[in-house]
Amino acid sequence: MSVLTLYYAPNSCALASHLALEHAGADYVAVRLDFASQQQRSADYLRINPKGRVPALVTERGILTETPAILQYVAQRHPAARLAPLDDAFALARMNAFNSYLCSTVHVAHAHNRRGYRWVDDAAAIAAMQAKVPHNMAECIELIEREFFVGPWVLGEGFSVSDLYLFTIAQWLEGDGVDAARFPKVADHRARLRADPVVRKVIDIESGAR
Amino acid sequence: MSVLTLYYAPNSCALASHLALEHAGADYVAVRLDFASQQQRSADYLRINPKGRVPALVTERGILTETPAILQYVAQRHPAARLAPLDDAFALARMNAFNSYLCSTVHVAHAHNRRGYRWVDDAAAIAAMQAKVPHNMAECIELIEREFFVGPWVLGEGFSVSDLYLFTIAQWLEGDGVDAARFPKVADHRARLRADPVVRKVIDIESGAR
Repeated sequence: MSVLTLYYAPNSCALASHLALEHAGADYVAVRLDFASQQQRSADYLRINPKGRVPALVTERGILTETPAILQYVAQRHPAARLAPLDDAFALARMNAFNSYLCSTVHVAHAHNRRGYRWVDDAAAIAAMQAKVPHNMAECIELIEREFFVGPWVLGEGFSVSDLYLFTIAQWLEGDGVDAARFPKVADHRARLRADPVVRKVIDIESGAR
Repeated sequence: MSVLTLYYAPNSCALASHLALEHAGADYVAVRLDFASQQQRSADYLRINPKGRVPALVTERGILTETPAILQYVAQRHPAARLAPLDDAFALARMNAFNSYLCSTVHVAHAHNRRGYRWVDDAAAIAAMQAKVPHNMAECIELIEREFFVGPWVLGEGFSVSDLYLFTIAQWLEGDGVDAARFPKVADHRARLRADPVVRKVIDIESGAR
């Protein structure tokens, strides 16, 4: 029996945690939830994660949620994988600031496309939200491209969980009406991640190809 | 000259970082921005924080943004203050999961009250967002009250930056149309924090009373 269990849904932000576990060589299993049948709102799953969201990571000590928290945890649990600058509090804070921006601003901008019902009840307002998503997502990615992406990886020379998280969100750009080619650093970064064997394996698993 | 400079605005989420710096006994100065005159969008401030938001923490190595990242950084930089379970990766992840939920869900629910223009352009949609804020904020606080608040402090016996962050957001409940008395654990926690001399000092400073 594996030590860790990750609950995920395809094309969700849980991909970042899934990629981190695989990159870390963690002993884990991944369990897919079917959002189409609202499995994330089932009584069984709400006992695991009362938020009714993914990701949720079941550990021997309890359940963790929220991508930035899970990403740092996976990196700390598997230090040999060197997925975070664990020995440098400032560099770690830079990583967490990047991840927190993805979680609280970029993911939120994206969520207004298909999950507008979280914040409004009427159809006209939902349509108004959707109309602004391409602008807001492009603005976020432009800020990352111009200000925060150090290169060759997000944080500089060291590959980290921030690369996996940026890749996850960059996968949404076309669906959100953004011309990803406008942002050459982010586009090149995404292409490099897409070619990574670990990334290919996890995407194949999530899409049912393996 | 102080080592750290915090940029904040009164009644903003930067209060959490301000409280953490003061609780940690950090060598810092706090610089107030005037949101009424859009100082956070000035060219001078955008050079410090291109997001045009608070908080921003200027350090000798560079600038940090995003509340969850700043909170863990302040705790790591001042370990004697014991503001985070730094020696326990799982407990630290629980802390970060709590902080990330405040940042990406609760703060975002609140932002739809007065900053709806971030996500829509028309007045009717902004009004539709505002109408749902009391429901959404109450739902978030109910989940914290029922599922995440361990007691006597957020994470259990150990006081942490999560207490300062929850207090910060709980201060917004009345303005968001939530009857805070419905949530006795969160209300009692808030009353305890309000009586804390460090909290009183920082609130007086932010409100101009000191």
